[in-house]
Amino acid sequence: MKIAVDAMGGDFAPEDVIRGSVIGAREYGAGLILVGPETRIKQEMAQWDTSGLDIEIVHTAEYLVEGEAPAYALRTKRNASIALAVKLVKEGRADAVMSNGPTGGVITAALMHLGTLEGISRPVAAGDFCGLTPRTVMLDIGGNMDCRPDQLLDFAVVGTVYARKLLNIPNPKIALLNVGVEEGKGNTACKEAYPLLKQSGLNFIGNIEGQDIATGKANVIVCDGFTGNAVVKYCEGLGRTIADWLAVELKNDLPQTRIQEISRKLLSQMIKADNTGGGPFWAVNGLILKCHGRARYPEIALTVGNAKRYVDLDIINAQKKELEAVRSRMRKTNKEDY
Amino acid sequence: MKIAVDAMGGDFAPEDVIRGSVIGAREYGAGLILVGPETRIKQEMAQWDTSGLDIEIVHTAEYLVEGEAPAYALRTKRNASIALAVKLVKEGRADAVMSNGPTGGVITAALMHLGTLEGISRPVAAGDFCGLTPRTVMLDIGGNMDCRPDQLLDFAVVGTVYARKLLNIPNPKIALLNVGVEEGKGNTACKEAYPLLKQSGLNFIGNIEGQDIATGKANVIVCDGFTGNAVVKYCEGLGRTIADWLAVELKNDLPQTRIQEISRKLLSQMIKADNTGGGPFWAVNGLILKCHGRARYPEIALTVGNAKRYVDLDIINAQKKELEAVRSRMRKTNKEDY
Repeated sequence: MKIAVDAMGGDFAPEDVIRGSVIGAREYGAGLILVGPETRIKQEMAQWDTSGLDIEIVHTAEYLVEGEAPAYALRTKRNASIALAVKLVKEGRADAVMSNGPTGGVITAALMHLGTLEGISRPVAAGDFCGLTPRTVMLDIGGNMDCRPDQLLDFAVVGTVYARKLLNIPNPKIALLNVGVEEGKGNTACKEAYPLLKQSGLNFIGNIEGQDIATGKANVIVCDGFTGNAVVKYCEGLGRTIADWLAVELKNDLPQTRIQEISRKLLSQMIKADNTGGGPFWAVNGLILKCHGRARYPEIALTVGNAKRYVDLDIINAQKKELEAVRSRMRKTNKEDY
Repeated sequence: MKIAVDAMGGDFAPEDVIRGSVIGAREYGAGLILVGPETRIKQEMAQWDTSGLDIEIVHTAEYLVEGEAPAYALRTKRNASIALAVKLVKEGRADAVMSNGPTGGVITAALMHLGTLEGISRPVAAGDFCGLTPRTVMLDIGGNMDCRPDQLLDFAVVGTVYARKLLNIPNPKIALLNVGVEEGKGNTACKEAYPLLKQSGLNFIGNIEGQDIATGKANVIVCDGFTGNAVVKYCEGLGRTIADWLAVELKNDLPQTRIQEISRKLLSQMIKADNTGGGPFWAVNGLILKCHGRARYPEIALTVGNAKRYVDLDIINAQKKELEAVRSRMRKTNKEDY
């Protein structure tokens, strides 16, 4: 099991990337291929105990920086660290790639060298984003803006795999986020997605409204990436607002230290992303994990663990199988091509 | 000052509608025109002290019921209570109309007899929906699904009037809800709405992301009604989830009664709609307030107070003036028609 690491991605590269990767490699039993300037990488590696670890280096002097136009940058820097790292997965030399470089660059490299799963146009962003509802994943949460009905169906398929593999729910309940529960409600995409979801053979329970996002009624909540992004980030912001409100409300009830502890707990539930490491772009034809640019070494170590887990769970093939199963059912019930 | 009341709208009509209207009329000093079956209305009125109140009755035996197709129902029941009540505003006999009948029927009656403000295609739903952020109104929150860029601009205009008149903010800050702060981010409607908002002469502060909905950064948050609806209802649902979480977390810190009090306070902040009475459909060419179908008499009394307040604030003319001002500025900076 080898993970290709873009050693030059993120605000604290290569220092934190290498430190975190080395910790993660030991902790989770993963091999590493570090991609970046060899001398610089060796210099960082020398500071940590790498004895007995399976670590290769692939040398390149080129890498992307924040603010570049991704497609242009990748065409002019053919040997950018992220490009070489992604190619290692394409060539079968690595099982997964991870980066905390610029999102646009990472996605573009993934699309150039790995592509998406058949019939899917762009990577899908998915997340069990709120610790208060640990058995619910929402998607898309920012990868796809104006969505067609068939994309919403694809999200349901990917979400089913996510819930089954990562949340251990054998037959996840799928719901369409909407403004009312009845069929026929909502925007154009929802109105047309509803019958597709009904025919899909997935465990579709119908529409849910916003008040049920946090109740656990559905295990997979399907929506366009604009709405999903708003909801996920709203949860984060609201966490801070409620923590502030609670601090005032509890001021005369409890000691400051206990209030701070409650705030911290609430925030860690509502802003989950910061302490669980990076996750994959779903629906890409290869395993690619992205951690945010400001990630420090503990998060990078966690991301190594996540990559290892996704490889072990055979996430890509599970998505391919589920997509094919749904499409074959749709072809049978529906004369039109799907 | 007279308010036309659809006496037959809602789950508890006419009992609670009449009781609440009578209480509201006395409390807020409003005249009433009760529209519905005269004998039935008199029977209910006889139970409450109406001495000295200015109450007229307009008789009709017809009214809408939940589940009817609104346009068809209103064509076949020409004298439906909601239709007659709306016409009283059209004819200048009443200053506002209120109903807790079926939403579709109320909106259709408003569109048939009052229409929308010039250049606006559908009523707009707006709300300062969260007590934790009392200086923020969001719109649209459910009236308009697939929105064009110029509709998002209209929402900004209506929101400006809302914030100025109802939240007492002289120069409200307008933001566009988006997935990133930079211009050019988001779905097609947002990308095209951004330059319109910049040219509008409104106090446009740019995009905000979901995490800033609850921080008070903007006084008016503009978004399509699908996303707005999800966010507003999510706030409601999350309130319940967090109250449950807190009850467990504080179990060993505080007595049950105090925990219940904190829960109640939090919920009343996060589910504001239930205790503030009905609000208007914005951008309609006449004042029409809708309360939800399950509203009981205290909420109906509050809705009378709201109607009185909106009449006093001259909400309709303020919207007309602001719309005309923005359009005139757009015509100057922009050769295209707006």
